[in-house]
Amino acid sequence: MTIPAPICPPKRILMGPGPSDIDPRVLAAMAAPTVGHLDPYFLQTMDEIRSMLREVFQTSNDLTLSVSGTGSSGMETCVVNLVEPGDKVVICKNGVFGMRMADVAERAGAEVTTIEKGFSEIFSADEVAEVVDRIKPKLVGIVHAETSTGAWQPLEEISKVVHDGGALLLADCVTSLGGVLVKVDEWGLDAVYSGTQKCLSCPPCLAPVTFSPRAVEVINARQTKVASWYLDMTMVRNYWGEDRAYHHTAPINSNYGLHEALRLILEEGLENRFARHMRNHKALKAGLAALGIQYSVPEGQQLPMLNSVLIPDGVDDAATRKQLLTEFGIEIGAGLGPVKGKTWRIGLMGAASCEQNVVYFLAALERCLSGQGIAVDAGAGVAAANGVYSAS
Amino acid sequence: MTIPAPICPPKRILMGPGPSDIDPRVLAAMAAPTVGHLDPYFLQTMDEIRSMLREVFQTSNDLTLSVSGTGSSGMETCVVNLVEPGDKVVICKNGVFGMRMADVAERAGAEVTTIEKGFSEIFSADEVAEVVDRIKPKLVGIVHAETSTGAWQPLEEISKVVHDGGALLLADCVTSLGGVLVKVDEWGLDAVYSGTQKCLSCPPCLAPVTFSPRAVEVINARQTKVASWYLDMTMVRNYWGEDRAYHHTAPINSNYGLHEALRLILEEGLENRFARHMRNHKALKAGLAALGIQYSVPEGQQLPMLNSVLIPDGVDDAATRKQLLTEFGIEIGAGLGPVKGKTWRIGLMGAASCEQNVVYFLAALERCLSGQGIAVDAGAGVAAANGVYSAS
Repeated sequence: MTIPAPICPPKRILMGPGPSDIDPRVLAAMAAPTVGHLDPYFLQTMDEIRSMLREVFQTSNDLTLSVSGTGSSGMETCVVNLVEPGDKVVICKNGVFGMRMADVAERAGAEVTTIEKGFSEIFSADEVAEVVDRIKPKLVGIVHAETSTGAWQPLEEISKVVHDGGALLLADCVTSLGGVLVKVDEWGLDAVYSGTQKCLSCPPCLAPVTFSPRAVEVINARQTKVASWYLDMTMVRNYWGEDRAYHHTAPINSNYGLHEALRLILEEGLENRFARHMRNHKALKAGLAALGIQYSVPEGQQLPMLNSVLIPDGVDDAATRKQLLTEFGIEIGAGLGPVKGKTWRIGLMGAASCEQNVVYFLAALERCLSGQGIAVDAGAGVAAANGVYSAS
Repeated sequence: MTIPAPICPPKRILMGPGPSDIDPRVLAAMAAPTVGHLDPYFLQTMDEIRSMLREVFQTSNDLTLSVSGTGSSGMETCVVNLVEPGDKVVICKNGVFGMRMADVAERAGAEVTTIEKGFSEIFSADEVAEVVDRIKPKLVGIVHAETSTGAWQPLEEISKVVHDGGALLLADCVTSLGGVLVKVDEWGLDAVYSGTQKCLSCPPCLAPVTFSPRAVEVINARQTKVASWYLDMTMVRNYWGEDRAYHHTAPINSNYGLHEALRLILEEGLENRFARHMRNHKALKAGLAALGIQYSVPEGQQLPMLNSVLIPDGVDDAATRKQLLTEFGIEIGAGLGPVKGKTWRIGLMGAASCEQNVVYFLAALERCLSGQGIAVDAGAGVAAANGVYSAS
């Protein structure tokens, strides 16, 4: 065969639902020389990653580590380790990732009950309390930041009603971790998973997870083996723990990248980072409003890092995204599931959440819309965003 | 917390059971800018990876791709996609990875029968034929290159008897792919998995897999969902296929690295690469013999890339490996499972299979042994290796 040309990617501005822009320091760390997966240097790196992940998760959970797969493998890890065949599980479905969690739980042999909301809606604590009271599940699964809809689900009250009902709470924080507050211990979350390619701004590859002592007790008390050998925490934790017992070979260089991404987060400080995400979200929102574009999620429930907006009437979804990508190098996300063709998902995640991206995107979008004959006030989007930046 | 220092790994020569030395071109590719996982550029990269993997697997199998996890996730992928609860599966166990395959198959609900051999032994076609005839399994699993023992299992005759018995053949080629002949189509292998960190000389992260049309038929005819959502080929193949249907977010930069590693293999040519692995193996073996060190596997069944040798009497296993690592920067592997403390595993995989590594390792080992009061002929190891290189 003809050997393909070497890797030489085009320059992109990653404002979709992930991966997000990667800091050059993270890319450089990933290119550091590979060492053995039981090398003293890598064992120290693993320890440092665990410590930094605990800071970012705001937890003292011992069982905190990066699973050797992407965010979805983190979901599967949490579910298969906590669920045994026949267990009752409640999943809150208001988007693609709640649907996925229900699917994963069913495959693990759970007796799954779902409560459902429309895409873009969130659940109240009362709604969760009702189903917990009725079903008496072992586990309740919910999505903190629905990447498919941009909806921001508060967890604190729900955690209380889940625990009052004697269940464990599993939270999908793939998109929220590192972008908004995720207080694992204070909120009482029992199992949490995330992914590296959203607000941690690291290439996709790893899934940070953390399990509460209560969740670990449940794992320890299992009557059956975990369905997945690869994701079995009863073995993986011995590799990440003091035993250093060989399980699988961890992705060395991807963990180098995560290490540097976590260092960047701690250097910035969590509160500063969350404030940055919120500020750029507000500027983007003001700019979009000035271009006549509305959010699909009600005010107060909008995620700052995943801006799901309604595509205006008369605008060609695919053509606009293609023009943004090819002319401006900007990737935004299409709608997923039932909102496909109806929404765009504009990410401002991690390193991508910056003033330069917001301003350039608004300028680019204005040109795309004008080109399609949509009436927009010239410069209005950027001016509105500038107004937010000037005032804050 | 105190923020840990940046990643700055020590220089290592990776002569263990993997990861192996990584070509700088691969590390550079991994540090290329991340693009979106549905970006036209990444879709093209995926296509090129598939084409190059087919060359390396020597197959025309359509369902050939890199699973988003390490080698062990490749094993799990093959097993969970082909096995349904209650299926009869035969696993040939002659090392840690056969044992693991049996465990994975049991978790998938298979009715597992094992045939067993001592560590360092291999199976004859007659032995496999007997169990296939007796059990009439759906699937037979066997390890082509047992990383735990260094034994090289011929597959061609076994493939015939497995197919004569109406079963599918699953082969673990984690350590063999890219180092010795793996002829998927000619040998009739139905499902094969590998890992990136052995003879492909790419950091651990991905698991190349390939499924024959017969295996795909079995997947298509499943009555139950695949136990693992993350590894479900009925969905993953639509992401890698023409549909480009979103499943999970592929590890972009790790696939960049695999792309470059595959380019390196095709540039060298498979036959040249296999000859290089064999030449360095022979030189190492001559040098080890001159130092009084014997292989744990019989002549003719020794893997060229994974040299499992008996630790001589009076030699301190851990102290020697530690000295090699700290004084010489050389990593070799300890024995695994029942041969722990009895063998070393000396890898000559991919980029690590080179004259410089062989010679330097023999010189370093001589110094370690001398330091422990073991009588060795000064320079004999390197001289013997040089003899092989001069003659070939």
